[in-house]
Amino acid sequence: MNLPAKLESLGLTLPPAPKAVAAYLPAIRSGEMIIVSGQLPLEDGQLTVTGPVPSSTPLDAAQNAARRCVLNALAAVDPLIDSDWSRLVRVARVGVFVASDPTFTEQHLVANGASELLFEIFGEPGRHARAAVGVPCLPLGASVEVEFMFEAR
Amino acid sequence: MNLPAKLESLGLTLPPAPKAVAAYLPAIRSGEMIIVSGQLPLEDGQLTVTGPVPSSTPLDAAQNAARRCVLNALAAVDPLIDSDWSRLVRVARVGVFVASDPTFTEQHLVANGASELLFEIFGEPGRHARAAVGVPCLPLGASVEVEFMFEAR
Amino acid sequence: MNLPAKLESLGLTLPPAPKAVAAYLPAIRSGEMIIVSGQLPLEDGQLTVTGPVPSSTPLDAAQNAARRCVLNALAAVDPLIDSDWSRLVRVARVGVFVASDPTFTEQHLVANGASELLFEIFGEPGRHARAAVGVPCLPLGASVEVEFMFEAR
Repeated sequence: MNLPAKLESLGLTLPPAPKAVAAYLPAIRSGEMIIVSGQLPLEDGQLTVTGPVPSSTPLDAAQNAARRCVLNALAAVDPLIDSDWSRLVRVARVGVFVASDPTFTEQHLVANGASELLFEIFGEPGRHARAAVGVPCLPLGASVEVEFMFEAR
Repeated sequence: MNLPAKLESLGLTLPPAPKAVAAYLPAIRSGEMIIVSGQLPLEDGQLTVTGPVPSSTPLDAAQNAARRCVLNALAAVDPLIDSDWSRLVRVARVGVFVASDPTFTEQHLVANGASELLFEIFGEPGRHARAAVGVPCLPLGASVEVEFMFEAR
Repeated sequence: MNLPAKLESLGLTLPPAPKAVAAYLPAIRSGEMIIVSGQLPLEDGQLTVTGPVPSSTPLDAAQNAARRCVLNALAAVDPLIDSDWSRLVRVARVGVFVASDPTFTEQHLVANGASELLFEIFGEPGRHARAAVGVPCLPLGASVEVEFMFEAR
């Protein structure tokens, strides 16, 4: 699989690999499992959306933010598999945290932004187990945070 | 182990396996690990309880909801092990999200609904690592969402 | 690696191993993976801090609480590796839940309390994938809950 070409066909680009900050890492490998840190919808170092859904961030913008988290996650995985995406076995788990107004109950629709993009990119191996929950607030005021587990050869 | 018989002895029934919806799956297998998506307390397609604990959903109803999430999770695992529960090695992790009033601090008691049922069903291999936290709101307004990891042969 | 000596050099002490309570366990082992239950900042059975950050618990106290959760996690792992910390391959994942005022957006700084201590103790293998999120409330009113995955031989 040629990830950059696949992304280009979807009008997307792999962002630069995130740098390690502080005492944790963007992603780690443990055996066949790659665990990606909770990704924020950062684009060129800036959050694309902040505040709770839907009062500050409408649903469609939150879905786009979840898509952005996927791209940032793939950028974090890329160096752990030497950019050889044929080594990806499958997406295993996606955990979606949505900064939510207290009455917002469509976190699953926000999460679909991430899930559907993974399926568009990887096909059947892109389908995964998932948890989506509401939270009152996230680091830096992000509207969405998404963490990932991948299985790789 | 005969899961349906064991459940029947507890007055319970394995629900139908959940169907895959959208771009994610009810459960996936990666090596020895089975990861189950966050389960809501759905019964015949309807949420049994909605809203925060305890103002909308009393503690005992939330505990029952957590038990229901366990049954739904087992239904999701069942096809991944060809209904052969002797292949289950252990329950590995349970993650419990409780829609909570801001002052509710007994999420662990809600989670016990899930943990104790797993122990009743599976005995010692049913004991697991666990995280239980409060959240303001969950998909579809559910009072409880529970995700799972199992180890299987 | 001599964990007690390393902790002593940092002015810290390994707490007693937590006892199993109810139907779940402080930590489990599944293959190479050790999963630690969500740890609260308990010290001698008492929560060190309670309530949301920062109105009830200032940032630095929350960071200290996250450090305490690390010590409690290590105490939970210790019996699973027969106190032989040379069997630890790496810290794999840290999940940090911070009881947060609705406008608090520095959960990552709270989480750094845990991450930096793991790095101080274990060096490079102490660096991990991480998710940090805000929640409205936690079991027993704790200000912080931290869960962990370790890889061990």
